[in-house]
Amino acid sequence: MANFASDNTSGVHPKILEALIKANEGDAPAYGADEISAGLTARLRDFFEHDALEVFPVFNGSGANSVAIASLLKSFEGFICHKFAHVNQDECGMPEFFSGGKALPLSGLLGKLTPEGIEKIVAHSQIHMVHHVRPGCVTITQATEEGTVYDLEEIQEIGAVCQKHALPLHMDGARFYNAVMALNCTPAEMTWKAGVDVLSLGGTKNGAMMAEAIVYFNSEQAKDAPFYRKQLGQLASKHRYLAVQIHALLEDDLWRQNATHANQMAQKLGEGIANCEGCSLYNPVQANEVFAHLPLKTAETLEAKGHQFYPWTLLGADVYRFVASFNTPKADVEAFLADLKVA
Amino acid sequence: MANFASDNTSGVHPKILEALIKANEGDAPAYGADEISAGLTARLRDFFEHDALEVFPVFNGSGANSVAIASLLKSFEGFICHKFAHVNQDECGMPEFFSGGKALPLSGLLGKLTPEGIEKIVAHSQIHMVHHVRPGCVTITQATEEGTVYDLEEIQEIGAVCQKHALPLHMDGARFYNAVMALNCTPAEMTWKAGVDVLSLGGTKNGAMMAEAIVYFNSEQAKDAPFYRKQLGQLASKHRYLAVQIHALLEDDLWRQNATHANQMAQKLGEGIANCEGCSLYNPVQANEVFAHLPLKTAETLEAKGHQFYPWTLLGADVYRFVASFNTPKADVEAFLADLKVA
Amino acid sequence: MANFASDNTSGVHPKILEALIKANEGDAPAYGADEISAGLTARLRDFFEHDALEVFPVFNGSGANSVAIASLLKSFEGFICHKFAHVNQDECGMPEFFSGGKALPLSGLLGKLTPEGIEKIVAHSQIHMVHHVRPGCVTITQATEEGTVYDLEEIQEIGAVCQKHALPLHMDGARFYNAVMALNCTPAEMTWKAGVDVLSLGGTKNGAMMAEAIVYFNSEQAKDAPFYRKQLGQLASKHRYLAVQIHALLEDDLWRQNATHANQMAQKLGEGIANCEGCSLYNPVQANEVFAHLPLKTAETLEAKGHQFYPWTLLGADVYRFVASFNTPKADVEAFLADLKVA
Amino acid sequence: MANFASDNTSGVHPKILEALIKANEGDAPAYGADEISAGLTARLRDFFEHDALEVFPVFNGSGANSVAIASLLKSFEGFICHKFAHVNQDECGMPEFFSGGKALPLSGLLGKLTPEGIEKIVAHSQIHMVHHVRPGCVTITQATEEGTVYDLEEIQEIGAVCQKHALPLHMDGARFYNAVMALNCTPAEMTWKAGVDVLSLGGTKNGAMMAEAIVYFNSEQAKDAPFYRKQLGQLASKHRYLAVQIHALLEDDLWRQNATHANQMAQKLGEGIANCEGCSLYNPVQANEVFAHLPLKTAETLEAKGHQFYPWTLLGADVYRFVASFNTPKADVEAFLADLKVA
Repeated sequence: MANFASDNTSGVHPKILEALIKANEGDAPAYGADEISAGLTARLRDFFEHDALEVFPVFNGSGANSVAIASLLKSFEGFICHKFAHVNQDECGMPEFFSGGKALPLSGLLGKLTPEGIEKIVAHSQIHMVHHVRPGCVTITQATEEGTVYDLEEIQEIGAVCQKHALPLHMDGARFYNAVMALNCTPAEMTWKAGVDVLSLGGTKNGAMMAEAIVYFNSEQAKDAPFYRKQLGQLASKHRYLAVQIHALLEDDLWRQNATHANQMAQKLGEGIANCEGCSLYNPVQANEVFAHLPLKTAETLEAKGHQFYPWTLLGADVYRFVASFNTPKADVEAFLADLKVA
Repeated sequence: MANFASDNTSGVHPKILEALIKANEGDAPAYGADEISAGLTARLRDFFEHDALEVFPVFNGSGANSVAIASLLKSFEGFICHKFAHVNQDECGMPEFFSGGKALPLSGLLGKLTPEGIEKIVAHSQIHMVHHVRPGCVTITQATEEGTVYDLEEIQEIGAVCQKHALPLHMDGARFYNAVMALNCTPAEMTWKAGVDVLSLGGTKNGAMMAEAIVYFNSEQAKDAPFYRKQLGQLASKHRYLAVQIHALLEDDLWRQNATHANQMAQKLGEGIANCEGCSLYNPVQANEVFAHLPLKTAETLEAKGHQFYPWTLLGADVYRFVASFNTPKADVEAFLADLKVA
Repeated sequence: MANFASDNTSGVHPKILEALIKANEGDAPAYGADEISAGLTARLRDFFEHDALEVFPVFNGSGANSVAIASLLKSFEGFICHKFAHVNQDECGMPEFFSGGKALPLSGLLGKLTPEGIEKIVAHSQIHMVHHVRPGCVTITQATEEGTVYDLEEIQEIGAVCQKHALPLHMDGARFYNAVMALNCTPAEMTWKAGVDVLSLGGTKNGAMMAEAIVYFNSEQAKDAPFYRKQLGQLASKHRYLAVQIHALLEDDLWRQNATHANQMAQKLGEGIANCEGCSLYNPVQANEVFAHLPLKTAETLEAKGHQFYPWTLLGADVYRFVASFNTPKADVEAFLADLKVA
Repeated sequence: MANFASDNTSGVHPKILEALIKANEGDAPAYGADEISAGLTARLRDFFEHDALEVFPVFNGSGANSVAIASLLKSFEGFICHKFAHVNQDECGMPEFFSGGKALPLSGLLGKLTPEGIEKIVAHSQIHMVHHVRPGCVTITQATEEGTVYDLEEIQEIGAVCQKHALPLHMDGARFYNAVMALNCTPAEMTWKAGVDVLSLGGTKNGAMMAEAIVYFNSEQAKDAPFYRKQLGQLASKHRYLAVQIHALLEDDLWRQNATHANQMAQKLGEGIANCEGCSLYNPVQANEVFAHLPLKTAETLEAKGHQFYPWTLLGADVYRFVASFNTPKADVEAFLADLKVA
């Protein structure tokens, strides 16, 4: 019985737990004034090869996205996003509430924004100025909500159109490490070198307990982030326990190991599904998620056997989502595929 | 060198860590659909002797307060609070931002609201209706921000005036357990039996890593809480790790042991300060905080020796705050007092 | 040189001015406590054949829509609307900002919502509860932003689906009177008898200076409207000057005369355009707006001659909008059509 | 029977009505693109002797204040104001809601802020940064809500402390013209020359129907004002009818004549009350309002005779407010004082 429900149904990686235990020695100043938290900036500057980035650990991914967007927008502005973006579909209106602004959603193949789409929204906003919400930033999700990954050129092109219109570019990196492994690039190449200004750096879906971070590559934009993080409820008092989780993922390339495994399991799963009579992939498998067409009867049979996965009706009545995680057993994938064959 | 800076500079109690480790077995549904989370409701119904309460774990105390208040207010309403309340002074405007409403602060001795104060605000709001913010709820902090504790009768009287005006009563219980021990009463007596409708049940300051809970004693008021918690960023994906911390505090009366120790250390510290020539208590010590007048030179000498505590200028130029915690060593209190004598 | 730019480029109807002058006799209590304002409720109860409606005059249409929506929504909810609705396109995010909620836009032919579309959004919101914005109300525009008019049956069907899901139904009636004349029905039939709960009753576009009204057919929903109107900035101090404009439109059927003329001019204009070689209507002309395809060169020639109208690129690169008003001279329509023929 | 209830119970000055009628000739572009609106900037630049000011007419005073404050604040910031300020007491939380921020109220004699009070709030906000709301602007009311007038030196001193802390200074000028006449200074001296950055320029209380304006003396701060005005519901479609009212007040010094009369009537009324046995002024009369102590029985007798005025319990149980207006008949003041003598 395989569990492909989500990468947040997995537990916490043992090394993260060890780090939490180790962080528990002695008292430490609250609210990020401790040494572990202080060391995180240097650690991430190294990781991202960027001397001036600023980092703000937060509790969860919606918090990271919404605080980031709030810090980039004025209340009359909007954030351009894919119509299926987590910020538009799955955060119960939090980015809008936190920023006062409005989602400006766009269609796009493979779950991706395009430079043309962004240009179109910008152009429309300039027709009857003040009546229309003014675009205030662009946000892309990497890996996307459809399991795909923007390649570097695609990000660069979006970065270029953002720069042209002075729109900060935010990246929702809930599955950031999976995407880095998919592209086999450096974290720098996938972010600031491609034009990304602010990153929601995921941790929870890659083995942390609860820890994400907002990373600003532009220190001017980070200026008020401490206040936004506080007012919007994402500042932890015992802050070291957030920071240490992010440290632990970077230690000994744990992030790489976790993301690689998840991606490989998804790859294997995707191949198996694609090869199954009557089934087909909805999108190519590029990170740790598989979106596939399954006959209803097949899906029901698999569910009856206890396999867990979600119908994804946004993409079609016969589309299902399967998520692999850092701890997905290879045997579970194989067992699922065996059941699939006979379903 | 004693650390009386705050009860959130303490680490995590070992039993909480053990519980987190134990919770890490296997996968579990996200967002509170797991068994540990599900069990928390029953556990708290038992603890509070209340069959119908609803519980919503959140990340931090400001989150608990602000989501609770948001769920009780309409945007044109206000929350009546003490002028030194955490919700008015220390949350960077979060309760207002989350609710759309306005703080309606009151003065009051010992950090406490009075029924008369509440009546006065209600009366004022009725003079030029619609022009004035309408009171929508009342919030008290127990133990208070001045280190005192409302006795049961005081809460009951506030509860009665709230009921009279149909104002829900919220209790900020960041130091809830300390207050229960101070009053030597049951959790039920200090909450719903006295008229409290919604409680922010603290955990972090009593030994948890990061875990608080919003407890609704009125299920009608809880109806939309799941949505408010989500939209306002306080819903954890790996939810079991929040829930288990709250469980662990209740297990084997860990909460009682932790609160008792912190209170005793504060008591001892308060007595020592009160007996010191030139020093005096600002308020009686009733929970785990001490507010005291110290000569500037004395304070500076102690700080120079490495003792940690905050000046509390809100209460006076010569007032300082000392917080004891579940893990404050008795020896530290004694060392501090010894240094104080000669300072 | 005809001016079809908008029905708010027209001035104020002389009878409205007369009413304002007459209202200026003597002092009067502020904020709606005067006799003219008080009389408006009775006047509209008569007009709408509804004994219990409540009315709240406001300054402008965006104000009427946004205050109405704010009074119907909780912050985590959304308003279902057509994607081209004024509330979604032309109010700079005001309804979202005032309510805290989110626009849930739908496509639909002729600028109209459909029951099926509403059902689809409701169904989607129920899949991953709390993650998705919960629909909190539905808003339709009558006449629509595409110049069409919902017939009574269409409104009734939407009303039925709203009732089924306990969603209040709001109608943006910026061009309410034009629609009533188009349907040749009673105001009651087009609103509460068809399931409409709250109406933004337009005045400005039908000859008033600045005056709209929020009309609640459900007094329970109106309960907090006075506070929302005040907090959201739409309560006039010298309130009688708003109320009297709405009175004046109802006096001697001025509304009917104004709407009839505007509709007739649009009809005439539409027929002329439809009959012109190379041009065609985008939608049937049902109220006082014409949307039509014109060759670019034709449009440019007409603009060069001083005729005023807007390109409406939302609907297509070659689509233009022409609005007739209560004071559009018949001669202007004829002159325009003459120029069109030779353009 | 004198009416001292408020200066917004008065009607509209005949010259304002004339101007509205004259503005009604022909069609005109909407939303401020008309010639009357365009001319207002030049008119006010002349009036304020300031080459670069920007002006945004709005519907009402709360709108002017709240849009102005929203344009100056970030959501985590607060506006420093007197505790009895209209923005803190009488706008139902609108400035907070529009800005996302928080009122930071201060006590102060005569209804006035002091530089010391502002310094104290700034100092407090810097103690536990991010936990406290950051001051984002200062707002003063001129004439104040207690009927007094800041003299130029007082404004300059506040201006200086604002500049020192980079806090924009907003002036709520609902009774701006009354204050200018009271000080017998130029509009420039009372605003930008004294350090005021943004002014809510009142019109309604000085004889207009409904028209106020936000005046920015700092064009950088005005940059986004068009969007804030639109999103917050204060942009009129038939904009010329707002603009022309402000023009009309400036024409032939109508503002001066109206304010002078109102101030003189208040002066006369104040003298009469001060000379009445058992009565006394609460504050010196400096503009068009009188705050006075009256025995309860006296107040009741006067009310019974039909005189209108409000008890002002905020200032004391025996304090009453009397407001004179541009059209307050001298005979009414005399009749009131005659009745007072025998009451």
